[in-house]
Amino acid sequence: MTEKKFVYFFNEGKKEMKELLGGKGANLAEMTGLGVPVPPGFTITTEVCDLFYKNNLSYPEGVKEQVQENLSKLEDKMGKKLGEEADPLLVSVRSGAASSMPGMMDTILNLGLNDKSVVGLATKTNNERFAWDAYRRFIQMFGNVVMGIKHDKFEKVLESVKEAKNIHYDNELDIADLKKVVEGYKVVVKEEKGKEFPQNPIEQLWMAIDAVFGSWNNDRAILYRRLNDIRGLLGTAVNVQSMVFGNMGETSGTGVCFSRDPSTGERKFYGEYLMNAQGEDVVAGIRTPQPITALEQGMPQAYKELVEIKDKLEAHYKDMQDMEFTIQEGKLFFLQTRNGKRTAAAAVRTAVEMVEEGLIDEKTAILRVEPNQLNQLLHKRLDPKSLAESKVIATGLPASPGAAVGKVVFDAVEAAELAETGEKVVLVRTETSPEDLIGMNAAQGILTARGGMTSHAAVVARGMGKCCIAGCGDITINEETKEFKTKDGIVVKDGEFITLDGSEGNVYVGKVAVVDPDLSGNFAKLMEWSDKYRTLKVRTNADTPFDAQVARKFGAEGIGLCRTEHMFFAEDRITPMREMIVSRTVEQREKALAKLLPMQRSDFIGLFKAMEGDPVTIRLLDPPLHEFLPKEEAEKEKLAKELGIALSELEEITEKLHEQNPMLGHRGCRLAVTYPEILKMQVRAIIEAALDVNSNGMNVVPEIMIPLVGTSEELKYLKDISIQTIEEVLAGKGAHIEYKIGTMIEIPRAALIADKIAEHAEFFSFGTNDLTQMTFGYSRDDVGTFVPDYIKKGILEKDPFQVLDQTGVGQLVEMAAKKGRSVKPNLKLGICGEHGGEPSSVEFCHRIGLTYVSCSPYRVPIARLAAAHAALKN
Amino acid sequence: MTEKKFVYFFNEGKKEMKELLGGKGANLAEMTGLGVPVPPGFTITTEVCDLFYKNNLSYPEGVKEQVQENLSKLEDKMGKKLGEEADPLLVSVRSGAASSMPGMMDTILNLGLNDKSVVGLATKTNNERFAWDAYRRFIQMFGNVVMGIKHDKFEKVLESVKEAKNIHYDNELDIADLKKVVEGYKVVVKEEKGKEFPQNPIEQLWMAIDAVFGSWNNDRAILYRRLNDIRGLLGTAVNVQSMVFGNMGETSGTGVCFSRDPSTGERKFYGEYLMNAQGEDVVAGIRTPQPITALEQGMPQAYKELVEIKDKLEAHYKDMQDMEFTIQEGKLFFLQTRNGKRTAAAAVRTAVEMVEEGLIDEKTAILRVEPNQLNQLLHKRLDPKSLAESKVIATGLPASPGAAVGKVVFDAVEAAELAETGEKVVLVRTETSPEDLIGMNAAQGILTARGGMTSHAAVVARGMGKCCIAGCGDITINEETKEFKTKDGIVVKDGEFITLDGSEGNVYVGKVAVVDPDLSGNFAKLMEWSDKYRTLKVRTNADTPFDAQVARKFGAEGIGLCRTEHMFFAEDRITPMREMIVSRTVEQREKALAKLLPMQRSDFIGLFKAMEGDPVTIRLLDPPLHEFLPKEEAEKEKLAKELGIALSELEEITEKLHEQNPMLGHRGCRLAVTYPEILKMQVRAIIEAALDVNSNGMNVVPEIMIPLVGTSEELKYLKDISIQTIEEVLAGKGAHIEYKIGTMIEIPRAALIADKIAEHAEFFSFGTNDLTQMTFGYSRDDVGTFVPDYIKKGILEKDPFQVLDQTGVGQLVEMAAKKGRSVKPNLKLGICGEHGGEPSSVEFCHRIGLTYVSCSPYRVPIARLAAAHAALKN
Repeated sequence: MTEKKFVYFFNEGKKEMKELLGGKGANLAEMTGLGVPVPPGFTITTEVCDLFYKNNLSYPEGVKEQVQENLSKLEDKMGKKLGEEADPLLVSVRSGAASSMPGMMDTILNLGLNDKSVVGLATKTNNERFAWDAYRRFIQMFGNVVMGIKHDKFEKVLESVKEAKNIHYDNELDIADLKKVVEGYKVVVKEEKGKEFPQNPIEQLWMAIDAVFGSWNNDRAILYRRLNDIRGLLGTAVNVQSMVFGNMGETSGTGVCFSRDPSTGERKFYGEYLMNAQGEDVVAGIRTPQPITALEQGMPQAYKELVEIKDKLEAHYKDMQDMEFTIQEGKLFFLQTRNGKRTAAAAVRTAVEMVEEGLIDEKTAILRVEPNQLNQLLHKRLDPKSLAESKVIATGLPASPGAAVGKVVFDAVEAAELAETGEKVVLVRTETSPEDLIGMNAAQGILTARGGMTSHAAVVARGMGKCCIAGCGDITINEETKEFKTKDGIVVKDGEFITLDGSEGNVYVGKVAVVDPDLSGNFAKLMEWSDKYRTLKVRTNADTPFDAQVARKFGAEGIGLCRTEHMFFAEDRITPMREMIVSRTVEQREKALAKLLPMQRSDFIGLFKAMEGDPVTIRLLDPPLHEFLPKEEAEKEKLAKELGIALSELEEITEKLHEQNPMLGHRGCRLAVTYPEILKMQVRAIIEAALDVNSNGMNVVPEIMIPLVGTSEELKYLKDISIQTIEEVLAGKGAHIEYKIGTMIEIPRAALIADKIAEHAEFFSFGTNDLTQMTFGYSRDDVGTFVPDYIKKGILEKDPFQVLDQTGVGQLVEMAAKKGRSVKPNLKLGICGEHGGEPSSVEFCHRIGLTYVSCSPYRVPIARLAAAHAALKN
Repeated sequence: MTEKKFVYFFNEGKKEMKELLGGKGANLAEMTGLGVPVPPGFTITTEVCDLFYKNNLSYPEGVKEQVQENLSKLEDKMGKKLGEEADPLLVSVRSGAASSMPGMMDTILNLGLNDKSVVGLATKTNNERFAWDAYRRFIQMFGNVVMGIKHDKFEKVLESVKEAKNIHYDNELDIADLKKVVEGYKVVVKEEKGKEFPQNPIEQLWMAIDAVFGSWNNDRAILYRRLNDIRGLLGTAVNVQSMVFGNMGETSGTGVCFSRDPSTGERKFYGEYLMNAQGEDVVAGIRTPQPITALEQGMPQAYKELVEIKDKLEAHYKDMQDMEFTIQEGKLFFLQTRNGKRTAAAAVRTAVEMVEEGLIDEKTAILRVEPNQLNQLLHKRLDPKSLAESKVIATGLPASPGAAVGKVVFDAVEAAELAETGEKVVLVRTETSPEDLIGMNAAQGILTARGGMTSHAAVVARGMGKCCIAGCGDITINEETKEFKTKDGIVVKDGEFITLDGSEGNVYVGKVAVVDPDLSGNFAKLMEWSDKYRTLKVRTNADTPFDAQVARKFGAEGIGLCRTEHMFFAEDRITPMREMIVSRTVEQREKALAKLLPMQRSDFIGLFKAMEGDPVTIRLLDPPLHEFLPKEEAEKEKLAKELGIALSELEEITEKLHEQNPMLGHRGCRLAVTYPEILKMQVRAIIEAALDVNSNGMNVVPEIMIPLVGTSEELKYLKDISIQTIEEVLAGKGAHIEYKIGTMIEIPRAALIADKIAEHAEFFSFGTNDLTQMTFGYSRDDVGTFVPDYIKKGILEKDPFQVLDQTGVGQLVEMAAKKGRSVKPNLKLGICGEHGGEPSSVEFCHRIGLTYVSCSPYRVPIARLAAAHAALKN
């Protein structure tokens, strides 16, 4: 009878067996196969882990025997036996699943030592200190990791020995000290566990293997898998490998190296090493490691071999390698190789250069760069060289990436005025409202004390591509004395310079040097390839010609969302807008709207021109009218005077417009139903603008988007009025134009009845911000009180305003797409919420067949790359 | 070749042919078949109408011929010919679809008259005045209805003739005057239509038939069908019937009668008549009609026949009949019979008595009463006798039915204090908030100037079964001077008496007499039958033992929703509640909660006892905490003092709790996740209360309901804490109890992932109020600004907070029910929104298989009857 193979000697596996041997085991096997010097060993498969749990924590038949066979093979190969007193074989035991997984038990070194073999090891290596040091490390590691004894119990013993001798570092301990430590450790084990430290090496081995398998289902590992959405793994493998030592003298050493520079991507050998040391000594930071190239002088032969092998491994894996090696008495061993982590810049450079070197193809290069990483490359950032001298005085949410240096200003109008004089300013507010737009626009960056990642400040700043730190609870703003105070008591006054790092959320006092992004070269190449493979279009959310131009530069193929309300906050418009709002009659309202019409028209002309004929979707007025009215007493008085009405009348109107839940109130298309004249003005401005640019040789097909539709009757009602208005405009000018009328799907009910809505719509654009608010019942402005806690407690995996909730909200999006297309198979479908620039959400949009995603200008390249990933993966 | 039959002579049809002959035609045929004297005539079928539209507004082949054949048959039967100069046959032309449908063309009388036959008619009847009066009526009616000439054009002619003679009433016109009117009318027709009034009777007939069919698709008729959800009809039929005249002298007359009293249901002959008059004279109100019984003396033979026929018709139709009759020169004719409209009291009485008389069975009786009608019977109402002397000073929304008489009070605390002294009070507020509960509870009724049918005042009042008029824009409240002013300038001061009619929305000044409801007798019998046939259980929403007892009296079979938050507004509780809210530490919070625990426990003991062992579902704390904090300065100062904290600290806490959109904020289970100690206190109180009553011989199985769940993780997290708390309570007492933990489905996402939620829930209760808010994106507090307009414009058919939106919200409810049961086939499903007492929504709940509906106590009988209807119809 052939028994199932549960254990693989390293030379029996290969890298493709990752599922069965785990990542580490597969790579050790692969290296062994390549002839790379790897300390021999074997891997117990992930399948054993799976069966271990299925069999109620017992091993399937044959495992024990196969481990024993492979151990014997290892002993034969090494010429030593585990636990042999004179010349013991020592092994490491390590976990290793198919995906890297912190939270599980990691490593046991020096297994096989006991009170007797430690003496043999001392004799054999002629290095008694080394042997006892190895033993005390083993007991501590085994005691902690396998037996579950708290780390500080051992630490206390060590400290007391060091204190007694008045020394500071472990390497100052002499042999006698180390023996004392060993004795002390054994007492700890006895006290904590009620039994002696196990002396039998086979018992040690099985205890270690049990512990590795046991750690697969500990709370931390389960949580890690859930948070990282790791599913479908059988379990972890266990690697048993013969020990090599970098601390056996001056011809021994250990190090870490990369086949290319992981921070720049430059093709050069990069790394560091330490002679006469073990891996953990490198980490401890007591001695300063040498740059890897220095090894060439000290041990030219080992260095030469190291370079040859790293070249071989990179060529073999076709990716930048991150390797660990040990030199034992002049002989080089590789303990690990894996694809190296890298910065965004390095990711782009290695990916593109490897294509040029013929190592990989374009598709592989695209998939090598995580879309979100690009964010680091698209914005100004603080010069790393200057960071050392700079002081972080407060930290908030990294709400919009980039860097900003400027004078602190606490008022939006002042910020605008100061910026007008050529000063660079940073706007600091408790929180922002649409009234602050003028100042936000003028500022280099925005800092708010309150609000989350999707607060007004954050959303607007991201839209503007402007650096923003939001919800910085570390600062308290005093608007009266014009200063803010940090929790450490540092006071920053109006006019002082600060620097914001919007990517990290750090606030610095003073000026920090800033470096500009470079979007040419490798970056441009990668984007070009992405465009070649993606099928999803990428548009942008832009409200101004400037935004549109930025987005265009980043590759946007149209505007998916122009929010017209932002146009009404400009100084020359807010007054007629307010006049319109306080109107008592349709006539008054129409008079005020007539003032806005030419301005709106010129806005749209600017946008159409900026997009050079690419589609532009314009959303009709969306927010509740009270958002446009002044909130402060002085402003109210001023407005009442301007409008020639009593302050009491203005207050009465304001009071009447007040809403308990403005998010669910009189806004979106509900405004247009009540005041069709607003819609008529906007539609007229859109069509007149399109006629204007088309008469100058463009061919714009404007897309009019009616927001917040929840019933098909609303859409039909407003579409009819829109068409009638358009016919009037065209008849008046004897002109003709193509146009589209569509709607946002942002109300759950709209998704549920999307088939009925599609009868009246030429396109759908999913407004996933509002759809998320209503599907979850979360107010974006108020979630700061509980969503962070929800994420901490694992109730939510991600903030649903940042990453589209595919489970819930996604059901509605998919349902609406299907129902819509069931009525109109070619219905144009897009998404224009914040999610349009988030990679996993972009992939979802690709999968359910949307036509395009639309995102803020600075996320356009991310969306392009994410769309390419989606196309290549699906 | 047999031609399709398009026209039925009255003796060829029967009442079962309503679809084909229309309601009126089928009943005329039925009466003819029964031998009731009906003026002969024929019906053109609804199918002709259908084909008329399908054939692009032309008649199918054979129609013209069949009409002509039937007309000849009619002429033979009557011995007269249409348009014959000497003795003309006159006919009426009437529309009549299968459902009664205002908005379509109604009636043409006296068709067949022209310049010549009017003379013949005068001669033949020996009544020249009668003939010319008939002619002028005909021209006016035909000109208006068939030819589309505006009514006032004719009215002007009539007025000028009357003015010239200085007379006031039409019946004062003499023959010469009438001839002048006819001439004038003909000029109007010529002027308006550019052609003469048609003199050819056959042309008149076809023009009238065309007009009836044409009116089937006019805007009003289409709107009416849409609003009343009338679908699937072929079209309207046309009835052509020979004329009879009640105005041919003193042995002629006309009248309307009912087989039972339509206002009380008493089995007695009821109606009125007018001698020498046509139907329209009765309506005009110039002469006062006689009670029907008076006819016995004047025309005993006709009366006897009338009584015989009405008895025959009621026995035949097995329902109370509403009949129209005409006596022409001593001979009785029936022109119409139909089931009579009736008051709620009459509906119940006739239904029950007809069962007792053996006329109908119980099921029919149940279906005879519209559930919503019962509302009239469940509340106090104004004594109709007193209404005549009473003055309506303002009208608002009929937010909660019933009647209330009391002294006006503008402050909740004052209202409570005054009520304490035995005074009856009416609380008058601009709008109410939870702080007003104490006053609302003490008042006879509530009047608010603002807020809709689902405002706080309306919802709470309905819950309390208390009369409420909401959103009464006719009044302006001045809280300083303690008075309100109506739009007519009437001022009502604090302490003056007013009376509210919550069923009509009318406010009266002074005291109006009130009558009590009677729930015994016929009402009780009908309820008993309903319970026999329904399968859906009916529970109540009740927060106090008093409410629970009221609901019990109305037949509630448990509590579907106990809102615990209402318990915290009582005077002795609000302070510890606030203490809990302002706590800085868990310890402080637990201390405050410990004060609330015994009160909560006694609340629940009261509820369990009131429900006598029937299930009680208790919802854990739901509203955001800021709702419990005082809003006014003085109250804030008082509280700060009571709690021993600085006012500034209290204000800081209040500010921190402030939310932009509280509906979508930190409430429901989100509170419990942040402050598990609140949940623990409530769960402890519930279990301790249940143990207490069970130790006294009851067998309560408490149902703990976790609100506002949107993710399965939330429910699991809180369920685990609840179970742990329960285990602690039980372990502490060494006791055992059965209990259920479930959740509300009120967030759209919860419905979408109901299968996942069901894994952790033992029951679902659909919170359709919040579900409607979020599915539509409507804030219940703010919809007053646009929903009325939406309904007026036909964008919404019904207010979705009153009638469940089956198209949208219903999809989510049905989806959640299915998904939930797919995981747990016996999952208990209920509904506890306002919709639980609305008949069409109850039917929906029955259809999708819910276990129960829960509604406010006063709607329990309505829900019971609606559930019986649902069972009998489905």
